[in-house]
Amino acid sequence: MIITMRDDSNLDQQRQIVRHIQERGFQTHVLGRGGDTVIGISGRTVTPVLREEFASLPGVAAVTPATRPYMLAQREARPDGTRVRVGEVVIGGAEPVIMAGPCVIEGHDQMLEAAQAVKAAGATMLRGGAFKPRTSPYSFQGLGEEGLKILALARDLTGLPVVTEVMEPDQVDLVAAYSDMLQIGSRNMANFPLLRRAATAGKPILLKRGFSATVEEWLMSAEYLLAGGNDQVVLCERGIRSFDTATRFTLDLNAVPLARQLTHLPVIVDPSHGTGRRELVEPMALAGMAAGAHGLIVEVHPSPDAALCDAQQSIAPEVLERIVARALALADLLAPAPRVTSITALAAD
Amino acid sequence: MIITMRDDSNLDQQRQIVRHIQERGFQTHVLGRGGDTVIGISGRTVTPVLREEFASLPGVAAVTPATRPYMLAQREARPDGTRVRVGEVVIGGAEPVIMAGPCVIEGHDQMLEAAQAVKAAGATMLRGGAFKPRTSPYSFQGLGEEGLKILALARDLTGLPVVTEVMEPDQVDLVAAYSDMLQIGSRNMANFPLLRRAATAGKPILLKRGFSATVEEWLMSAEYLLAGGNDQVVLCERGIRSFDTATRFTLDLNAVPLARQLTHLPVIVDPSHGTGRRELVEPMALAGMAAGAHGLIVEVHPSPDAALCDAQQSIAPEVLERIVARALALADLLAPAPRVTSITALAAD
Amino acid sequence: MIITMRDDSNLDQQRQIVRHIQERGFQTHVLGRGGDTVIGISGRTVTPVLREEFASLPGVAAVTPATRPYMLAQREARPDGTRVRVGEVVIGGAEPVIMAGPCVIEGHDQMLEAAQAVKAAGATMLRGGAFKPRTSPYSFQGLGEEGLKILALARDLTGLPVVTEVMEPDQVDLVAAYSDMLQIGSRNMANFPLLRRAATAGKPILLKRGFSATVEEWLMSAEYLLAGGNDQVVLCERGIRSFDTATRFTLDLNAVPLARQLTHLPVIVDPSHGTGRRELVEPMALAGMAAGAHGLIVEVHPSPDAALCDAQQSIAPEVLERIVARALALADLLAPAPRVTSITALAAD
Amino acid sequence: MIITMRDDSNLDQQRQIVRHIQERGFQTHVLGRGGDTVIGISGRTVTPVLREEFASLPGVAAVTPATRPYMLAQREARPDGTRVRVGEVVIGGAEPVIMAGPCVIEGHDQMLEAAQAVKAAGATMLRGGAFKPRTSPYSFQGLGEEGLKILALARDLTGLPVVTEVMEPDQVDLVAAYSDMLQIGSRNMANFPLLRRAATAGKPILLKRGFSATVEEWLMSAEYLLAGGNDQVVLCERGIRSFDTATRFTLDLNAVPLARQLTHLPVIVDPSHGTGRRELVEPMALAGMAAGAHGLIVEVHPSPDAALCDAQQSIAPEVLERIVARALALADLLAPAPRVTSITALAAD
Repeated sequence: MIITMRDDSNLDQQRQIVRHIQERGFQTHVLGRGGDTVIGISGRTVTPVLREEFASLPGVAAVTPATRPYMLAQREARPDGTRVRVGEVVIGGAEPVIMAGPCVIEGHDQMLEAAQAVKAAGATMLRGGAFKPRTSPYSFQGLGEEGLKILALARDLTGLPVVTEVMEPDQVDLVAAYSDMLQIGSRNMANFPLLRRAATAGKPILLKRGFSATVEEWLMSAEYLLAGGNDQVVLCERGIRSFDTATRFTLDLNAVPLARQLTHLPVIVDPSHGTGRRELVEPMALAGMAAGAHGLIVEVHPSPDAALCDAQQSIAPEVLERIVARALALADLLAPAPRVTSITALAAD
Repeated sequence: MIITMRDDSNLDQQRQIVRHIQERGFQTHVLGRGGDTVIGISGRTVTPVLREEFASLPGVAAVTPATRPYMLAQREARPDGTRVRVGEVVIGGAEPVIMAGPCVIEGHDQMLEAAQAVKAAGATMLRGGAFKPRTSPYSFQGLGEEGLKILALARDLTGLPVVTEVMEPDQVDLVAAYSDMLQIGSRNMANFPLLRRAATAGKPILLKRGFSATVEEWLMSAEYLLAGGNDQVVLCERGIRSFDTATRFTLDLNAVPLARQLTHLPVIVDPSHGTGRRELVEPMALAGMAAGAHGLIVEVHPSPDAALCDAQQSIAPEVLERIVARALALADLLAPAPRVTSITALAAD
Repeated sequence: MIITMRDDSNLDQQRQIVRHIQERGFQTHVLGRGGDTVIGISGRTVTPVLREEFASLPGVAAVTPATRPYMLAQREARPDGTRVRVGEVVIGGAEPVIMAGPCVIEGHDQMLEAAQAVKAAGATMLRGGAFKPRTSPYSFQGLGEEGLKILALARDLTGLPVVTEVMEPDQVDLVAAYSDMLQIGSRNMANFPLLRRAATAGKPILLKRGFSATVEEWLMSAEYLLAGGNDQVVLCERGIRSFDTATRFTLDLNAVPLARQLTHLPVIVDPSHGTGRRELVEPMALAGMAAGAHGLIVEVHPSPDAALCDAQQSIAPEVLERIVARALALADLLAPAPRVTSITALAAD
Repeated sequence: MIITMRDDSNLDQQRQIVRHIQERGFQTHVLGRGGDTVIGISGRTVTPVLREEFASLPGVAAVTPATRPYMLAQREARPDGTRVRVGEVVIGGAEPVIMAGPCVIEGHDQMLEAAQAVKAAGATMLRGGAFKPRTSPYSFQGLGEEGLKILALARDLTGLPVVTEVMEPDQVDLVAAYSDMLQIGSRNMANFPLLRRAATAGKPILLKRGFSATVEEWLMSAEYLLAGGNDQVVLCERGIRSFDTATRFTLDLNAVPLARQLTHLPVIVDPSHGTGRRELVEPMALAGMAAGAHGLIVEVHPSPDAALCDAQQSIAPEVLERIVARALALADLLAPAPRVTSITALAAD
């Protein structure tokens, strides 16, 4: 069950409602910053009598049932969508966000060069890995805190907000201290202790889809973040595992308009991991935008062939420049995005 | 090994080359209509000496090795691409093709109404099933020849060329007698006797990707058609089977730019089967175009909710109209399509 | 709706019932040879009144609703299971069937040598391909009718009944003339015209599961055969396509006990295609038996490394001999097979 | 590169070798308890000269190249296999291990009742979840430390060693304090910080395969544990995600003989998660044993229908009793297990 507060309600009313509901033995989860104020109610079933009682409290606009297992993430909780703010950048509005940068922060010069190049190419946020999940214990695992410092330097140099991955609960504070947005990687989408901890760091979160997660599971992981009190969540489709190895992953663009129907959270697309092949990044970036994404995250390297990680899927800054120009033109052409006419039941329901 | 003929070569030279090569114990496969004239050589290995001999024959422009198991379908065989002609419609050029119509031909009135509606909406070809592969032996299997007659009537009424599915070798002549293009459905992509027989019917062919076929297997099936002497082949990505049942299939748009790199054949996209959900058809149609497709095939029904087959994924003519307008604008905006910069090896190689 | 005839009913009663039902506007489908006589009713809904009427006809033991879309194949239609007879061999009883032989019939000597070797190793049926579905149009496609003649010779020599693949409707009579059992291959599981035609050939049928077919789709294809009047159908699990390429396919042994619950038809396992790796054939053959299979089909070659087709997964006759001994011991140990206690709803229902 | 110590070598020699190698700029990883003493060398390439130098050090039996990316886990590192000891139980030898118990520890009485029942049924280890990864933030997440205390009580009562899941690095010490073996769950197989931390807890580890992990990725995760100095690692195949939803997961038994070829670590099978359907647990448990597993882990509940978690796949103690009896008989019948004749390259290599 979710309660939507009236636009003209005040913080005091909200606190009273929360107290009132908790006194009746429920847990409450307040979504605040990125749109309508919404209070989720969990713990046990809300009876019709209680529902009426809650609906009549001062400041309440509506009481809505949970039609999905992810009541806070469901589109009905915020029909107008959520805006996520990362520094000056707003994700979820008409303007696409373009996050770009190298797979991994290799060193001071490479990162600063990359940062300036992606800024010049028109990107609006900077990405780069300091802690890297690697399949092999013997592979380079990232520069760690030193990498974070370089990333912060790159932000200062370019003015672009930065996003970087956090891999374990104990790293959350460290990574949050240096970056503007926390990335939960594909392998950690169902790392629930990490989700719980990341929700409380006071930073917006980029939640990548697990490469074998259903759309519903992805939204359930977002629900962990929302239930933890953080509504500044951006979803990222980055490719799923399929039987065809011609591409590294299968970018599941169906998930973009589907997620836009099912949830109010913004959705972006990662055509780099989603294809694993440099020459497919541009067309699939544009396809992602045409499918209705709010933006892109792209691996760019000053010298793609020399990249220490993901060289095969890294593009040069010139290619990024063309992608940015075309993505903006495309967003313009297709605005407003295809209307979400109706939400039909999932086959899996 | 493939031989490309010079632009100024003549049919007589071509015949002499074919005879010359066959006399040396090889099979030959001539691609004629849709682009450069190409002769494929199979049966045994071509020695360097023979290769030089073939290269020096009058009319030969180049002798190119088979870098892929699908030597005739590989992009290098016709770097400028193949044009497929269906009546007045040309597929594979700058102008997108939009095929539209009902899943199944239900009767005279429904089909003619649908035909006029899709014509009015701007479609350039008409689709409709007379023979339907159905999972259950107890389901409606299509009107058969009566359906074909109605389809031909719809063509006469609208002037739109028609495409319809053929399911078995013995049906090929019948279906070819009524339609302008033969469709090989997803379940029959690896029905090799059907491919062999369809190749010889003198009609262009729409080859849908098997929903569990790799891109390489799809191109191998195209190779059956080309080796059978028919170069008028259009590929259609229509969704693959994945672990997520939120959508009926997972439209694999990676396959579009990938196929455009690997082969010279045109590629179109089917967002109806590729999503199975009406409200996803428009965004995924546009995503397909942005990924570089040469066109679309869409299920449209005058009264979608009343459709006898695939009602959940059928759209109304008004939605088609918007898709057509946006697809054309998008093709315009993105022309020329992303350049194919380099062809790297498939992971599966 | 299905009607089960009484044990003491006679053919005349059966004919009268069929006529009676058809006169009321239904289609009927009679299952005869391999167990209880069952009459399936399709075409429209059976009202409660009609149901009572049918139940009271002379010779009727029971009228059972179709709880699954495959009413004839569903376990409830023949709780005691179906026995399939191929020559002297009975499939579906306590004795496991072991079909063995080369992937493809390469020639007279190879086939006869293989036949004698698999007979000596204890196999009870002989397999070998004369018509082969090949991904490439340039690969060896089998010896065709010449291969069938050699196969028949091998049967005469060994006394083992033979099974071989049929790929298209027009080949059915030819293949049926030479062989004791028709194989529908994995790529043709959903080739409905072929299923319809094969059902009428008067031969038992081995129906391989499509490598991307759900268990329900597999049983629907069996339903095509049963609805066509042929109840001599053996199902074969042969591996599905998954994301892991460490093995050629993923042998889905879950499908064995599941199919045994859902249907009365016998189920065998193909550990050769199901693994694609010679050294995994023995353990997975035994695993298939332990999962409840009624038998095995295995690729065996006198000189596995020299096999023209599927060399990587072909085993030597000595290995077959060990598999046969162990499979029989295992069937003995586990008899009776795990009881099917209850049939719960499929997740997909 | 790996160094195998001579059987008659001593700890002092081992320490000197480690020091010698580290002085040359390499990292070393010593595998001690469960079989031959092996020292892995990582960090940079070992030159032929250095290799010869290492081979000549006192106590060295052999220097073997890393033929796989998981040099410590590869079969060649310990051809005779690894024995894992959990209390009195030895895993990896001739005697199968049977771990059984409820999905989640629901309370004192349920757990003690379950423990006594599984002990009576013949199980050799006890399982039960105190910390549960749940898709929904609103679901019961386990009893936490209170659950661990109950589990320890159950061990004291029955004498059976206990295994339970650990979900985050900070929980490792707590879970290790109460349990005899740490379980890394399927969702955490690629949680590398957790693997690193768990390796150092001084407890044997049960490493479940990620439901979308390739066999190679699974062995790479094991390599994290081995490289962290813990060789007491048991692999567990528990089903992968496929396109068929008829079963909850697809138990990939191919992975069992494959893993036994590729690695020296013991492998067990989880037929409960691998099927998700109670009536399939027994046949698939037996199939797992026939495929060559060293044991089973099964969800058992005193009143399966009343289980708080995974009720659909929980079996009653009577069924476990039959599984134990049959599994032991089967292990007896098939001993020695199918010989690993040769290790061919993985397709993915």
